[in-house]
Amino acid sequence: MRTRPLKVALLGCGVVGSEVARIMTTHADDLAARIGAPVELAGVAVRRPSRVREGIDPALVTTDATALVKRGDIDVVVEVIGGIEPARTLITTAFEYGASVVSANKALLAQDGAALHAAAEEHGEDLYYEASVAGAIPLIRPLRESLAGDKVNRVLGIVNGTTNFILDKMDSTGAGYQEALDEATALGYAEADPTADVEAFDAAAKAAILAGIAFHTRVRLDDVYREGMTEVTAADFASAREMGCTIKLLAICERAADGGSVTARVHPAMIPLSHPLASVRGAYNAVFVESDAAGQLMFYGPGAGGAPTASAVLGDLVAVCRNRLSGATGPGESAYAALSVSPMGDVVTRYHISLDVADKPGVLAQVATVFAEHGVSIDTVRQQGRQDSDGEASLVVVTHRASDASLTGTVEALRKLDTVRGVASIMRVEGE
Amino acid sequence: MRTRPLKVALLGCGVVGSEVARIMTTHADDLAARIGAPVELAGVAVRRPSRVREGIDPALVTTDATALVKRGDIDVVVEVIGGIEPARTLITTAFEYGASVVSANKALLAQDGAALHAAAEEHGEDLYYEASVAGAIPLIRPLRESLAGDKVNRVLGIVNGTTNFILDKMDSTGAGYQEALDEATALGYAEADPTADVEAFDAAAKAAILAGIAFHTRVRLDDVYREGMTEVTAADFASAREMGCTIKLLAICERAADGGSVTARVHPAMIPLSHPLASVRGAYNAVFVESDAAGQLMFYGPGAGGAPTASAVLGDLVAVCRNRLSGATGPGESAYAALSVSPMGDVVTRYHISLDVADKPGVLAQVATVFAEHGVSIDTVRQQGRQDSDGEASLVVVTHRASDASLTGTVEALRKLDTVRGVASIMRVEGE
Repeated sequence: MRTRPLKVALLGCGVVGSEVARIMTTHADDLAARIGAPVELAGVAVRRPSRVREGIDPALVTTDATALVKRGDIDVVVEVIGGIEPARTLITTAFEYGASVVSANKALLAQDGAALHAAAEEHGEDLYYEASVAGAIPLIRPLRESLAGDKVNRVLGIVNGTTNFILDKMDSTGAGYQEALDEATALGYAEADPTADVEAFDAAAKAAILAGIAFHTRVRLDDVYREGMTEVTAADFASAREMGCTIKLLAICERAADGGSVTARVHPAMIPLSHPLASVRGAYNAVFVESDAAGQLMFYGPGAGGAPTASAVLGDLVAVCRNRLSGATGPGESAYAALSVSPMGDVVTRYHISLDVADKPGVLAQVATVFAEHGVSIDTVRQQGRQDSDGEASLVVVTHRASDASLTGTVEALRKLDTVRGVASIMRVEGE
Repeated sequence: MRTRPLKVALLGCGVVGSEVARIMTTHADDLAARIGAPVELAGVAVRRPSRVREGIDPALVTTDATALVKRGDIDVVVEVIGGIEPARTLITTAFEYGASVVSANKALLAQDGAALHAAAEEHGEDLYYEASVAGAIPLIRPLRESLAGDKVNRVLGIVNGTTNFILDKMDSTGAGYQEALDEATALGYAEADPTADVEAFDAAAKAAILAGIAFHTRVRLDDVYREGMTEVTAADFASAREMGCTIKLLAICERAADGGSVTARVHPAMIPLSHPLASVRGAYNAVFVESDAAGQLMFYGPGAGGAPTASAVLGDLVAVCRNRLSGATGPGESAYAALSVSPMGDVVTRYHISLDVADKPGVLAQVATVFAEHGVSIDTVRQQGRQDSDGEASLVVVTHRASDASLTGTVEALRKLDTVRGVASIMRVEGE
């Protein structure tokens, strides 16, 4: 074993960074044995140096992240700051100064992954980011390495623990969205401002990263259709149960049937109770992968949290250090397939639509005509008069597979019908 | 991209081998793009050259595997023959002649993994074997790479599809073992001689491989306690249901609480219905991993079959080819921890014991005394007289955690009691 240590610069020392530092200390011997050389924490860049950081030598702490990255003797930079800047500049500077990078930064990878990969390649450095998607769950590595000899057709994932906690709570207790969100906030599963989670910005970034790796194609955050889950109601869960389904916020990356294009989207969807993703409870994450040869795989585990995310960071750190010792680099960006990314209108799936309609003869015929005119084939219709009847009835339509564009056209036309008082909900049905 | 192809020798062209050859042909462009050089099937060694092999150039087929491996221009040998010999000699010969090896051979890896790794290292070649455990499910790579910065404490897996199919059938239909086995055989899930599956030889080999990688310690097949599932009855499933459990054949690799030793075992066990492994249906496999930092992870997918196993083989092939192009090798054997492997008697778990006892006063006191004398603490006892009473009753005892040695001693002593007519079943309770 080499005795001269590999030097690691840690950028950020919050929930994840402090766990990375802790494990680097407590598991130093194991890490050294697995890498083939000791690793040394050479510096820790933080914003607020006054905060006490247990177990970290104060002499290592600095507020000058740029100077740390430019020291010239750093082998690996671990970036757990998050956000676009200064993370992006620090990472590219790290490459320029001869360091490889391990990052947990989903927003940055989703937005600028291609440029970062290019910078890494230019300087012959590694860029690893297992921790950016689904925390501790090995997902990036299986997709880019284990399935490198296979053809992935679909990735269907619960990649946000906060929203899964909220939806699971609504499902199991009948609570409404606000009540479930309040509980998630009280328990620390949701942040004070939950927008990034509940509006699915977080999940969309992960979908972009997953789609890019799965399809060997550049997929940017802007390419991902995004719909949050704030409008999911207890009534939607009741409808889902009648369908033998539950509701999950899903990140869905698909190869089109003709193989020539891909789509990536994030939205709430009904999913059959028999699907392995349906039983993913609480704040857990799980990603279901369908490929030509392997068939259906699922990866399950904690999608966030300091220690789980640190586990993923340290797995990458070991790999990058091993590469460094052998003078090699791991797999870089693989975007050779360069498939086009189609808009949401091209997505083909099934729909569950709840309409409030006038309770009189002929309405069903009118509604059915609108669907037919837009080429959307109806699978089932359920009509029910209301108990507190004010002349309204409910019409629940479940369609066969249709394009999102056709469905949107259908709904627009339905809204114009006098007999349709409102569209109570539109939910996609996935995983069948 | 390099234009000179990497040359692959395929040893074996059965269910898995023919899929490997097929995908190498149909996905040649993708493989070349992902590797950075084309791969060429340079030869296929088979036992019966007369069998028609669709899509494989007859000029490549040979019965002389040794000559193929010794050609000197082979970059990677893919071994999908199975069994100990001639696979072992062919693999070591491959290393001697400058080739890396991708193998799907669980029996060989479990028996001689250390020697094969040593041979690979001596010659500076790679030995990859993702396909040897749980077919297409990425498991070896996540354990040896993704979790390389973590400390794995437990691996709990359904690693044999045949037995899971049989147990699932018994659970869902109330069928007995023989009836469920017959159905598995008829559907092609069980072989004509199902011994390797139902007596858990297959699962034991996988447990040895998983334990070795998870704990960075050599674990040989002989170190694995093995108990088949042929004696599991419909009555056991009824008992399991009363406990809120089902029964699975589990491979269990554990680090002892003091961290200084490990155990590996394969046997049927009750597992709570709420555990993610409980809902693994049919012939699917799943492996649950518990580690210090990552927490609980699960990997799920098809554990056997030509195409899924080929997917794992090809993932390894891409990795080995990439290593070759960069002049590096991937992770070799990691056995530095060199923990001792404890015998089954040291395993600590809970037990569900069904006794046939004389239906008279004082029996429970006698039985309870025997448990106490052996230091096995009782959690619950359920006593029930039989409908067709011939003076016998049933006594179901569920213990707290105790060592297997204590439990064995308890059962021996129970058998000597006049009032105990028989021990109907002993089942371990896991995953709580």
